[in-house]
Amino acid sequence: MSVPHLTTALTGPLLDLERKILAAQPEIEHWFRNQWQEHTPPFYGSVDLRNAGYKLAPVDMNLFPGGFNNLNPEFHPLAVQATMIALEGYCPDARRVLLIPENHTRNTFYLQNVAELAKILRQAGLVVRLGSMNPEITESTTLDLPDGGQLTLEPIVRMGKRVGIAGFDPCVVLLNNDLSAGIPAILQDIEQTLLPPLNAGWAVRRKTQHFTAYDKVVEKFAALVDIDPWVINPYFEHVDGLDFHSRAGEDKLAATVDTMIEKIRIKYEQHGINQVPFVIVKANAGTYGMGIMSVKSGEELLGLNRKQRNKMSVIKEGMEVHDVIVQEGVPTFEQINAAVAEPVVYMLDRFVIGGFYRVHTGRGIDENLNAPGAHFVPLAFASPLSTPDCDGSPDCEANRFYSYGVVARLALLAGSLELE
Amino acid sequence: MSVPHLTTALTGPLLDLERKILAAQPEIEHWFRNQWQEHTPPFYGSVDLRNAGYKLAPVDMNLFPGGFNNLNPEFHPLAVQATMIALEGYCPDARRVLLIPENHTRNTFYLQNVAELAKILRQAGLVVRLGSMNPEITESTTLDLPDGGQLTLEPIVRMGKRVGIAGFDPCVVLLNNDLSAGIPAILQDIEQTLLPPLNAGWAVRRKTQHFTAYDKVVEKFAALVDIDPWVINPYFEHVDGLDFHSRAGEDKLAATVDTMIEKIRIKYEQHGINQVPFVIVKANAGTYGMGIMSVKSGEELLGLNRKQRNKMSVIKEGMEVHDVIVQEGVPTFEQINAAVAEPVVYMLDRFVIGGFYRVHTGRGIDENLNAPGAHFVPLAFASPLSTPDCDGSPDCEANRFYSYGVVARLALLAGSLELE
Repeated sequence: MSVPHLTTALTGPLLDLERKILAAQPEIEHWFRNQWQEHTPPFYGSVDLRNAGYKLAPVDMNLFPGGFNNLNPEFHPLAVQATMIALEGYCPDARRVLLIPENHTRNTFYLQNVAELAKILRQAGLVVRLGSMNPEITESTTLDLPDGGQLTLEPIVRMGKRVGIAGFDPCVVLLNNDLSAGIPAILQDIEQTLLPPLNAGWAVRRKTQHFTAYDKVVEKFAALVDIDPWVINPYFEHVDGLDFHSRAGEDKLAATVDTMIEKIRIKYEQHGINQVPFVIVKANAGTYGMGIMSVKSGEELLGLNRKQRNKMSVIKEGMEVHDVIVQEGVPTFEQINAAVAEPVVYMLDRFVIGGFYRVHTGRGIDENLNAPGAHFVPLAFASPLSTPDCDGSPDCEANRFYSYGVVARLALLAGSLELE
Repeated sequence: MSVPHLTTALTGPLLDLERKILAAQPEIEHWFRNQWQEHTPPFYGSVDLRNAGYKLAPVDMNLFPGGFNNLNPEFHPLAVQATMIALEGYCPDARRVLLIPENHTRNTFYLQNVAELAKILRQAGLVVRLGSMNPEITESTTLDLPDGGQLTLEPIVRMGKRVGIAGFDPCVVLLNNDLSAGIPAILQDIEQTLLPPLNAGWAVRRKTQHFTAYDKVVEKFAALVDIDPWVINPYFEHVDGLDFHSRAGEDKLAATVDTMIEKIRIKYEQHGINQVPFVIVKANAGTYGMGIMSVKSGEELLGLNRKQRNKMSVIKEGMEVHDVIVQEGVPTFEQINAAVAEPVVYMLDRFVIGGFYRVHTGRGIDENLNAPGAHFVPLAFASPLSTPDCDGSPDCEANRFYSYGVVARLALLAGSLELE
């Protein structure tokens, strides 16, 4: 069904939304084909989804995905094929890629992700070397990986309008570093193809800009499939001018939360949903699950203690938070071994290349799962025999994961609008 | 490695040729990227390979592959992704496809192939219906499939400059019928996109034209990888003006065979190969394993008995053979459970999407395996753990199947030159 036929944690009959999406599949794929004629997809991306049963929505879109190690190795051929296609679009003449990872040298899970990504690029026929911007990497440094392999980081060097490493002049520079700390001078004004572009980094990017673009995408898509846009789109608001240390803006934030809780309550009534509304307050440029709170009323944000305020005020690379997105909370319906789980869908170019579940045993269905203690369960290819017919014809099987791939691609399309 | 990482029947150390191809992988992929900028790949194709250890060569290239049912179902996501890409190239606006199968209604294995192909197209987001040119199909006809499913054939109709079926006007017409019987009037001068084009059918196509194009491809590729072109290219000659019934041209054919046997003997001596040379004589427009002989000298072709002459003289759809390709025989090195086997590689657009082994328990290593009694063993994805490192680095594994994918893509490229 145009996305890998994967298993999900859900069982039971298809939800209304899933059924509508499956039925409209030829129109949806046709629509996506046209969209990708007009908009260039990001080189890669991952989308965190929440499936509440009545609602299936993206809650975050990452343009520097860091979990390639969590994908099922069986997906590699898909990723390799997608890489080849992406290359043809960006730079058909490419032979050598410089991959720039995050500066972590002790997060071995992250390093394993880098190793998997490098493997995909190599399998697509590229010569790949790893250029580190970490000031501690002053010479070629080989690190051990959890799987028994190794990874060699080399210091990145600038030569005129080009970056590379000593003795290696790449055609393409691929960032797996989200530039949370700002845009480094060494990457400015280079003549090589830089993927994704510098404005994709968190130094520039804002979640509220992404969800503004997502609103536009959803508006068109909801009309195509004839659904209430809300069932695939969480409400959001932008609140800035905050200072968690001095409590500046606390009242404004609390009022925004309360207004949204009320909007959600009205929707829940309309749709007959028996849930307690909640919202997620997130740093607008945040990542790595830092600077996030789940609240059920504005009051919870008044009088935060020092520890809570510290937690909200500082994100990756020690950046201060003055600017948040208040986002409708979507409870997750999915569980793996009685632990709450949310699907993460991986895309390369315009193709879904796989996914996994982020699982957290210690968290509730209304909490952020991208937090210490989370673990990952790779999604497997679904056996065609394990899924029921979707229309009684023998060669059309209901593919539950298809809907996940559609919603993830809507977020990817929003990412592409955002970068334009 | 840019082709699915598949298992092959071979074990043991990599052969010289395989090692050279693996080492040149970035250059090879770069070269293919450039080739596909200049040449449009056929919509799909399959290539029969022979691996003799000292030689890995295509012996036939089919532009209407009929064994999608023999592919591992795990490959479907790759095929679906490749279909989406092909569509974007040919006809981004496509929604509805008319698939035209062969006229067989009792060959259930073939019908299962059609069902699998239709499934791939549907999964790529197309509405697919099957239009039959079989005069016996005068109304919608549902046939049972070996896997318990069903397939519905409908009579193809012409409406002005368009073909379709009653109530269904397709954007794209996909042939899975090799047009052995000639180009049907109903398909001439249609305004819809027809894939592959009519000149890909056996009514027009000749194996010698394919191998002439393959010569050109190999010349460039052998220089790139620095190999003797012969190790990936079987000798061939064209002999026409034959009439097996009246024995016309028998001497010319025998003399061509003897000359080629002598050329092969010289190559075998050069390379220190201890094998008895043989050649394959095949109908130049033939398919389905019909009209094929394996001989070790020209003499074997003199004084054929009536049965042998009948076998050589008539191919699919009762077409008479006047024109053959004399092709260097490449013995197969590969065995599955002590039966001789040859790999068949499937491609869609420019991507390898899988493959299988054609296995024949009753045949020798120097015989044609595409014959009654053959069975098929799908190739599985290789486990990354089962293959040794190719250079000691942890993220580069030797992929034996990679060489097969490269040689198959060379033949695909020849197919593309042939259609231009």
